[in-house]
Amino acid sequence: MSFSQRHLLDIESLNSEEISTILDLADRFQEISDRRIKKVPTLRGMTVVNLFMEPSTRTRSSFEIAEKRLSADTVNFSASSSATTKGETLLDTVRVLEAMDPSILVVRHSYAGAPHMIARNTDVAVVNAGDGVHAHPTQALLDCATIRKVKGSVEGLEVAIVGDISHSRVARSNLFALPKLGAKVRVCGPRTMIPPGLEELGIRVCNRIEEAVEGVDVVMMLRIQRERQGGTPLFPSLREYSRTFGLNRQNLALSKPDAIVMHPGPVNRGVELAPDIADGDRSVILQQVSYGVAVRMAVLYLLAGSPPVEERPVFFS
Amino acid sequence: MSFSQRHLLDIESLNSEEISTILDLADRFQEISDRRIKKVPTLRGMTVVNLFMEPSTRTRSSFEIAEKRLSADTVNFSASSSATTKGETLLDTVRVLEAMDPSILVVRHSYAGAPHMIARNTDVAVVNAGDGVHAHPTQALLDCATIRKVKGSVEGLEVAIVGDISHSRVARSNLFALPKLGAKVRVCGPRTMIPPGLEELGIRVCNRIEEAVEGVDVVMMLRIQRERQGGTPLFPSLREYSRTFGLNRQNLALSKPDAIVMHPGPVNRGVELAPDIADGDRSVILQQVSYGVAVRMAVLYLLAGSPPVEERPVFFS
Amino acid sequence: MSFSQRHLLDIESLNSEEISTILDLADRFQEISDRRIKKVPTLRGMTVVNLFMEPSTRTRSSFEIAEKRLSADTVNFSASSSATTKGETLLDTVRVLEAMDPSILVVRHSYAGAPHMIARNTDVAVVNAGDGVHAHPTQALLDCATIRKVKGSVEGLEVAIVGDISHSRVARSNLFALPKLGAKVRVCGPRTMIPPGLEELGIRVCNRIEEAVEGVDVVMMLRIQRERQGGTPLFPSLREYSRTFGLNRQNLALSKPDAIVMHPGPVNRGVELAPDIADGDRSVILQQVSYGVAVRMAVLYLLAGSPPVEERPVFFS
Repeated sequence: MSFSQRHLLDIESLNSEEISTILDLADRFQEISDRRIKKVPTLRGMTVVNLFMEPSTRTRSSFEIAEKRLSADTVNFSASSSATTKGETLLDTVRVLEAMDPSILVVRHSYAGAPHMIARNTDVAVVNAGDGVHAHPTQALLDCATIRKVKGSVEGLEVAIVGDISHSRVARSNLFALPKLGAKVRVCGPRTMIPPGLEELGIRVCNRIEEAVEGVDVVMMLRIQRERQGGTPLFPSLREYSRTFGLNRQNLALSKPDAIVMHPGPVNRGVELAPDIADGDRSVILQQVSYGVAVRMAVLYLLAGSPPVEERPVFFS
Repeated sequence: MSFSQRHLLDIESLNSEEISTILDLADRFQEISDRRIKKVPTLRGMTVVNLFMEPSTRTRSSFEIAEKRLSADTVNFSASSSATTKGETLLDTVRVLEAMDPSILVVRHSYAGAPHMIARNTDVAVVNAGDGVHAHPTQALLDCATIRKVKGSVEGLEVAIVGDISHSRVARSNLFALPKLGAKVRVCGPRTMIPPGLEELGIRVCNRIEEAVEGVDVVMMLRIQRERQGGTPLFPSLREYSRTFGLNRQNLALSKPDAIVMHPGPVNRGVELAPDIADGDRSVILQQVSYGVAVRMAVLYLLAGSPPVEERPVFFS
Repeated sequence: MSFSQRHLLDIESLNSEEISTILDLADRFQEISDRRIKKVPTLRGMTVVNLFMEPSTRTRSSFEIAEKRLSADTVNFSASSSATTKGETLLDTVRVLEAMDPSILVVRHSYAGAPHMIARNTDVAVVNAGDGVHAHPTQALLDCATIRKVKGSVEGLEVAIVGDISHSRVARSNLFALPKLGAKVRVCGPRTMIPPGLEELGIRVCNRIEEAVEGVDVVMMLRIQRERQGGTPLFPSLREYSRTFGLNRQNLALSKPDAIVMHPGPVNRGVELAPDIADGDRSVILQQVSYGVAVRMAVLYLLAGSPPVEERPVFFS
């Protein structure tokens, strides 16, 4: 087992061996989630603080369940209720939390780089649970874990990522993770949603979804996030977006016969994904959610230092 | 012990034997709540998700305490913070939660039938914690448990339910539960608050509270919920309602000398219930709250399958 | 060990021996927080309800972590979501919670005296987590614990408290705690923020911060809480406040060379405290936060009755 990271901030910092270590461990934790008693004592007596400065019930619940299945004590700390409303800086909040001796901080923040800034200023292990348009490493890892489970391996697969590549931290993290595991990646979306310079990284940029999905093993659709787009809309209308870049039965037929369809959720049915595809037998969207818990357990386990579990705590007499 | 339900959605689906099984078990759990260590390992390693799409601290806290006393891991998932604000459907939310492998979903929703719809679409056990004006089965069960505890049996008792029968899920669930256990039920309230057809079900409809409470063993007062009534008020004023349908010392004197007074809470003191009655020695309102935890423990225990508790989990090496 | 209190409502009710008992115990719990497994089974099977009717993530998190490290089951009950929005009185809420058999109620409320009123009406142990401008006893205790740790003893020290003394529950609790442990206290702030009659209690009132900090061992700065001040501002401007009563390198130089700087947080950097002082090596602000968890563990431990921990609960068969 190869893992010497102190934090999980982005995919760029991991080498392919470390990614494989996480995925291997996630497979084992996935088995635990199938048991009646879905719990291991690995993080017993440790406190994990979920510092969610941007609302996200879905990711927060996934982390919270992962933490509890590892027997950690969890504390949720959200933006709305926190002292930041009293003018406290993020770093002050972090220092206060740190003084309460947590073992791991799980951070979601609307500003890109916030988890990195926190990690530079704390001894506590930091997990990035999504920062602005920058990174969402546990999402990319759960995507890879799902692909590997269904396809046997990520190596040599062709993967199309379709949607707003520029504003998607999911896409950004996958653009690093998938090539590290040996996949070939194509992206597709409106011109206004494709960042420049991807070709130099070996990513193929497609203008038409038909070209993007042709012959691929995996189609990863991104959520159209209207809230991220700011004032000027990046495409004329949802209807037009859907007609041009939405995945449906017709264009999915161009992919390999056993191609799978992924989506980080929540799905805008009828916008980026036709309802019959989202709920069809090609979709692995719910497997992704399921692997989310297992991958987060694996990351928390590795960052906690994974020492042999002491038989019993030293009880207070 | 007789219980083969997969979900607890309403009282209609239960037979009297199943109700008795729940009440018997609740009595045993009530004893545990009197101990110093109020905890049993029954649901250890299982995740219970409290999906509360309608705010309710009281019922949510009762469930949460019940779950923790059964050693379950609990995750609260509320409407305000959830992805439903991003346009996700209820069923999508449920499918996502289901993919995280919870053992039980506790659902409160403002739409009648939401928990049934969820139950039809999931393999996870669903507990209805109140759906619109439809059902609130754990409330009726805790009401029955309280009556049985105080009176020895529900069989043969005369019970008056007074208030807005039409819009009360508490009344509706009790109108099924009490007769199944052998009680005779009368209802009373403004004409606009009495649904048609109750007489055919063996329920006696009374126009005056004096008639309703005369000679009864139990008076169950309902909360006037102004928020449920929509635009046109169903009665002229709170003051008039209180004078006509409020329970006070005078009309309570018409009931049996040992009659008890119940209320699902929170009480509008001075509206449906005179303060001296609410806080008097006839009131069993707080016993109801106390049995709430025990009844919910019983329901969760039965739905979890109540297998013999394994001595220790298979630890992750 | 000397402690016979049923509640922790304020510092006035404690004698110096009881305060020392709490601080001694906090020292031992502080050691536990340094371990890898920061958990003791003391409160296993007990339910602690955090009834926070005024938002406070910081104090709530500190209590929640303390409770979890004692293995208690915790339930958070906040104002916004509670039945008080349905018109329920605070006492009704408490009676409902009490009926669910918690062992301890931790109460924060914006009205001074609310925890005392609750304590008079319940058998459950009540901890005051801050009530209006009245008291914040665990804050004063953690302040004393920090001073004692750094200075060896509180006895004989000179302590300056600077800021809005009138509206600070932190100041008020420390004005009782510090003299009980043998410290001499000076206060300083704008005339409008100093309550009358302090001199009679042996507190020295200083008009100028230079006079307040001269030769002291401890400088305790208070947060300027604009939200507490009501309509008419108590000082002309933040800038003027800062120039007159803010702690900076110049006036801090008047204190003893080894004087420490304290603040209950969150700090308004550049208002009551210069940034380089807040983050400098004289500051023990984060030690205060750290001792907060330990002191709260000690208080909860003592109120829970601290009996010998039973080896195992009586399991439900």
